[in-house]
Amino acid sequence: MHGAVIHGTRDVRFEERPDPTIEKPTDAVVRTVAACVCGSDLWRYRGIQQVTTPTPIGHEYVGVVEAVGADVETVDVGDFVVGGFLTSDNTCAVCRAGMQSHCLHGTGYDGCQAELIRVQNADGTLVATPGHPDDDQVPSLLALSDVMCTGWHAAVSAGVRPGSTVVVVGDGAVGLSGVLAAAELGAERIVAMSRHADRQAVARAFGATDIVAERGDDGVGQVLELTGGIGADAVLECVGTEDSVDQALRSARPGGTVGWVGVPHVGEIAQQHMFWRNVGLRGGPAPVRAYLDDLVRKVLDRSIDPGRVFDLTLPLSEVAEGYAAMDERRAIKTLLVP
Amino acid sequence: MHGAVIHGTRDVRFEERPDPTIEKPTDAVVRTVAACVCGSDLWRYRGIQQVTTPTPIGHEYVGVVEAVGADVETVDVGDFVVGGFLTSDNTCAVCRAGMQSHCLHGTGYDGCQAELIRVQNADGTLVATPGHPDDDQVPSLLALSDVMCTGWHAAVSAGVRPGSTVVVVGDGAVGLSGVLAAAELGAERIVAMSRHADRQAVARAFGATDIVAERGDDGVGQVLELTGGIGADAVLECVGTEDSVDQALRSARPGGTVGWVGVPHVGEIAQQHMFWRNVGLRGGPAPVRAYLDDLVRKVLDRSIDPGRVFDLTLPLSEVAEGYAAMDERRAIKTLLVP
Repeated sequence: MHGAVIHGTRDVRFEERPDPTIEKPTDAVVRTVAACVCGSDLWRYRGIQQVTTPTPIGHEYVGVVEAVGADVETVDVGDFVVGGFLTSDNTCAVCRAGMQSHCLHGTGYDGCQAELIRVQNADGTLVATPGHPDDDQVPSLLALSDVMCTGWHAAVSAGVRPGSTVVVVGDGAVGLSGVLAAAELGAERIVAMSRHADRQAVARAFGATDIVAERGDDGVGQVLELTGGIGADAVLECVGTEDSVDQALRSARPGGTVGWVGVPHVGEIAQQHMFWRNVGLRGGPAPVRAYLDDLVRKVLDRSIDPGRVFDLTLPLSEVAEGYAAMDERRAIKTLLVP
Repeated sequence: MHGAVIHGTRDVRFEERPDPTIEKPTDAVVRTVAACVCGSDLWRYRGIQQVTTPTPIGHEYVGVVEAVGADVETVDVGDFVVGGFLTSDNTCAVCRAGMQSHCLHGTGYDGCQAELIRVQNADGTLVATPGHPDDDQVPSLLALSDVMCTGWHAAVSAGVRPGSTVVVVGDGAVGLSGVLAAAELGAERIVAMSRHADRQAVARAFGATDIVAERGDDGVGQVLELTGGIGADAVLECVGTEDSVDQALRSARPGGTVGWVGVPHVGEIAQQHMFWRNVGLRGGPAPVRAYLDDLVRKVLDRSIDPGRVFDLTLPLSEVAEGYAAMDERRAIKTLLVP
């Protein structure tokens, strides 16, 4: 089979790789229906995170089960499945507490931008849809394997509830998904921080009530103006830079909470914006499995359409162009079809 | 009248001061029934926070209203009242969001370790008891003006709920109050970190199910052993040093939350224990007014007895000895009676 391998900065190649096989009785092998490129993949693509050896890449997928190990009980060959960006047994103490992204027996993947994927902990990771979805639902189901659940986790971590005032920092696919999550969780007012017309349009479609294009002090000033001078109940931090975390903390009202899901590249957390303002900071890698059942249902009954974050579709063999388009901000998020 | 004035390191004097008067129509003057010394007062007493000019000190009190301004409506001359360590109007947007400690029109006090106290924002700050309480209830009502509400805020910020496993870092009056708060909020297991037999005894009386005397790595190890290897759902950080915040973050399970209320003297927050473990950090100065109605009722119906944290009672005139006893750890918390 073929799959994407990252060799170094701006060097992703579509190569022949060995077919994955069932190595453990809890494994499944999935034939990819769609995969995609994640904002976090760009850290390596851009050389910010170094690649020391050629590495299969990708951690988002939907597909059809091709084979299962002897102990797999909840999915069968032929099922259409969604899996999160990390595997989990969904039975350990941490999983039972709802934090499957920290499963005591969890694993990553050996590259999901590929024609076939080995999924460890298949029972605790994969969710099968009832029957096969319509073609137009595939992007939205694919979005659940990372960005939509990550945006959802930001909103849950920030404590969004009916009536909340919410600010979303970051207009990438995760930030846009956060807007959709906040709307689904009943937020009354959703301020999307975005400077790009195409992303502003998606944010509006997902439920943003206000757009703020300014950043830094000006951005915070705009947020205060929109929130009666006090800041937002909940802020979704979907970038991960020191500036964006700082801006998020300053956008929360006293007693508010920042839900952070952008992989942090932060020297120091600005604690002066936390304790003395009673602003909380919660979040981390999303426990996708905890949210999948609910969100798969919402996609299948067409109450949410998170697949709108994909604005470029390419053959999997053109994965390198998929990275380049996102790196150069020609695309919000690239969908790849084998 | 007389009151405590701090002149410098380990120099608190009981001095004659002008009687406070009604300066604004929203003021009240309260004749002190009991006041006390706060762990946070010790920062100045110990010279960690510098005193540049003689300053009236103290921010915890219960008393009887002596005079009210023309606009005061909810308390009357003769009422027995409790007030929090900051004043609040209880009507601004921040107060309405439940964060009265950040009231847009809030103030501090001009020294509450005194015979008479001027309380600004009287309506939004003071809660009157129905009739005068029994003498033995006075310490518990006094505890509500700071430590008990601060412990409560730690528990609320950490998300303690029925069935929670809780760790409390710090065995001062706030930490012990945190144990009581966690028990009241339905925690199933409460681990108190304490090395002192007298404080352990209060912690047990307040509902601690386990005591851990170790600190640092050993303390975290003990907590993990007591929590099935994963850490606690909620951790109450009631000290404020870098070591204690670090220990608190490491004691939380993935997805758990640390409620911090110890005034932080922290160089840098150990974010590696946050994002990559999905551990949250929330808290700050307690919004006492938000909790007072509920907790006054609980004290008066004798369902909680937070006044047990006072283990030394002195005449107000001996306030200097009250500081010394706490500084030298001869007392957990000193109650002062005019």
